[in-house]
Amino acid sequence: MTSSPDTSDRRNNLPNSLSATDALAAIAAGTLTAEALTRACLERIAEREPVVHAFAWIDPERALTEARERDRTGAQHRGLLHGLPMGVKDIIDTQDMPTGCGSPIYAGHRPPNDAACVALAREAGAVMLGKTVTTEFALRHPGPTANPHDPAHTPGGSSSGSAAAVADFMVPVAFGTQTGGSVIRPASYCGVVGYKPSFNTINPTGVKPLATSFDTVGLLARSVDDCALVVDVLSGAASPSSPPERLQAVRPARIGFCRTPAWPHAEPATVRAVETAAEQLRRSGIAVDEVELPGDFAGFLDAQNDVLRYDAARVFAFERTRHPDLLSPSLREELAAGLAFPRSRYLEAQALIARCRSLFATAVAPFECLLAGSAPGEAPRGLHHTGESIFNRLTSGLHVPCITLPGFTGPNGLPVGIQLIGAFGDDARLLRTAKWVAARIDEFAAR
Amino acid sequence: MTSSPDTSDRRNNLPNSLSATDALAAIAAGTLTAEALTRACLERIAEREPVVHAFAWIDPERALTEARERDRTGAQHRGLLHGLPMGVKDIIDTQDMPTGCGSPIYAGHRPPNDAACVALAREAGAVMLGKTVTTEFALRHPGPTANPHDPAHTPGGSSSGSAAAVADFMVPVAFGTQTGGSVIRPASYCGVVGYKPSFNTINPTGVKPLATSFDTVGLLARSVDDCALVVDVLSGAASPSSPPERLQAVRPARIGFCRTPAWPHAEPATVRAVETAAEQLRRSGIAVDEVELPGDFAGFLDAQNDVLRYDAARVFAFERTRHPDLLSPSLREELAAGLAFPRSRYLEAQALIARCRSLFATAVAPFECLLAGSAPGEAPRGLHHTGESIFNRLTSGLHVPCITLPGFTGPNGLPVGIQLIGAFGDDARLLRTAKWVAARIDEFAAR
Repeated sequence: MTSSPDTSDRRNNLPNSLSATDALAAIAAGTLTAEALTRACLERIAEREPVVHAFAWIDPERALTEARERDRTGAQHRGLLHGLPMGVKDIIDTQDMPTGCGSPIYAGHRPPNDAACVALAREAGAVMLGKTVTTEFALRHPGPTANPHDPAHTPGGSSSGSAAAVADFMVPVAFGTQTGGSVIRPASYCGVVGYKPSFNTINPTGVKPLATSFDTVGLLARSVDDCALVVDVLSGAASPSSPPERLQAVRPARIGFCRTPAWPHAEPATVRAVETAAEQLRRSGIAVDEVELPGDFAGFLDAQNDVLRYDAARVFAFERTRHPDLLSPSLREELAAGLAFPRSRYLEAQALIARCRSLFATAVAPFECLLAGSAPGEAPRGLHHTGESIFNRLTSGLHVPCITLPGFTGPNGLPVGIQLIGAFGDDARLLRTAKWVAARIDEFAAR
Repeated sequence: MTSSPDTSDRRNNLPNSLSATDALAAIAAGTLTAEALTRACLERIAEREPVVHAFAWIDPERALTEARERDRTGAQHRGLLHGLPMGVKDIIDTQDMPTGCGSPIYAGHRPPNDAACVALAREAGAVMLGKTVTTEFALRHPGPTANPHDPAHTPGGSSSGSAAAVADFMVPVAFGTQTGGSVIRPASYCGVVGYKPSFNTINPTGVKPLATSFDTVGLLARSVDDCALVVDVLSGAASPSSPPERLQAVRPARIGFCRTPAWPHAEPATVRAVETAAEQLRRSGIAVDEVELPGDFAGFLDAQNDVLRYDAARVFAFERTRHPDLLSPSLREELAAGLAFPRSRYLEAQALIARCRSLFATAVAPFECLLAGSAPGEAPRGLHHTGESIFNRLTSGLHVPCITLPGFTGPNGLPVGIQLIGAFGDDARLLRTAKWVAARIDEFAAR
């Protein structure tokens, strides 16, 4: 389904090219071990990391030891993610690996525990492969990661390493987080599936906050199935006593074509991707109706950004006051702006966002989901910035689930995704629809 | 205003008996130094700590050093809390003091940074005096703290040490947190003012979560003024460029007498306190009208408890899986219950709570605030449990601001508070009303 930077691994059907769902099935069937899968991922990393720089920290021996522990687990104690290697964005705490947050302030920092999402994944049998590169504190200042499709281009951010590692077949699934556009944008730029669940679906404990009003743990993967499986395990929807059913692709009746307030920022590549997807869906017999959001949404993107900055100025009070010299100039600027922003206007922005949440629930109700752009276009050239979050502030602010699907390309042949957006709390329907839509995109691409 | 465990300090007008507002005024006027104030607090602690056990960690020399640094700050660089000693509940990270969370798992743990609320308080010039005792991870299992009014009785929890230290004149203000009933209940039991602001008013970064759906940073103090000042600084409503005005007591026109779903659990002491307060207000010419919450609220207290447990089972995934033997039996039980609870019912509980938030907004709208009980009664005897959160689940789940005011007593002469509850986001009105109500209670008590 994804456009791939190097499909040789896929053609050879090496374990690291398997989806999470297929890898887990192979492990359950006894045709693959956690160790062999982890080793295949590590070999891919050894080969490609000098170009991609997806990892902030990795110790192959530690990962293999964890995988071997899984292989020694008796069948009756195996969890739903038994043996699955996962990448962990480096703002997410891990007890046995440093958590550097993309900042010199935390270089080499060893947390006393695992974040909730890591501990839950491990409880289900997943293997934490290593820490993936984040921008500084998941905001703007980039890390060293390159886009695996063309290393002269950004992978996007802030979940840069997670998106690049998944795209490059280094790991089947990785944790990301989104506050502005940090899951959907890098996934779109790297040609993988990015999924930001409804707010608070994956518990955020142990994830370094950026703006507590919006921070959401999400996933980067190579299929909708993989996102659905992992989120079901982490949210508690699935458990050993109530195992998940395989995600059913469900043909939607109606999809809303929603240009969103970000549309004026769409480059031709995104316009073409979204319009092509709409056309493909219509040809498949789906009603694709234009949806215009109410006038209140005109101020939404600014409101989301204002709240983000205001929150961040409080979240980073320690770093701002004790280590100002170790912050990037762009972060210092953001925090100063957030500090200067009046609380009365912050509360107005929060009130506008709350009103829009309720208006959005009404707007999305007639549809299985909305179709929108994932990012302004393909990944920009250069590693000095990771692109704009403008296409993602809407869903981040609204707390609604969204997923980006790959399958289109831009003027340089780089990936361009389309975004599907669901109603708050109705992630299950969004994922079922997304699986069906992803299959249609693949089908049209194969023609 | 408070009933006091030992009023000699107050009679002698020692600095540690001053309210935060008065102490800050004295420092600003040059009649008191941060060092002298901190020293007075430390002397009180040295005298009383063997009985009260309010502190989990304190290093007098470190506190004095911090106070002396404040005294060396030039007038033009002094913040709005310049020289104010504060107690810090031991689930709140501090870079220069261990953060033990009331659990052997974190005994002696040194965080790499200050929590946002601590860093913001320090930025404004406050002095962190020491870490106050919390129950285990702010849930049930008690610490060693005793009620300063009678050490055979619990101080309440989970902000046990913060409430006891403020009540005992060890410190004028302390940070607490509330997820179930952890600010309002101990404040009521210890005879101080406890204030839980609207959700997310004080940034929660760096506070060990218990249930991310409800966790709220709050304050324990000896006056409404002190709560208003500190929350204005921490929320960003006040800043050196827009200093806070002194809180105006505003006479309310209408107060709602709301028995809340917890009323069947009220002991005679709480019934008498709330009814006496209502009568006093009526005699002052205030309309005090009965408010019945809609039928949806019948399931609210259970729903709040179900969500808390479900969240906690995820929040503590690391501790639960890696250190089960270091958890108290009661915590293990709670987490097991949360883990067994079906996600479908969790989502139903969250939906009920969301519905009730909107219903509550309508119910409270005609009033300046609602009047309710703060706890079942006075502090129970024994230090093996910290009492029930039943009177506090409503406001914790609703995210609305609430404040408990002292002034009444139970059958053993121990303090009993009354609770005032405001509309979400309208903390300013609640505090203005609370100041007026507190003065009326004092006036009647003085007759």
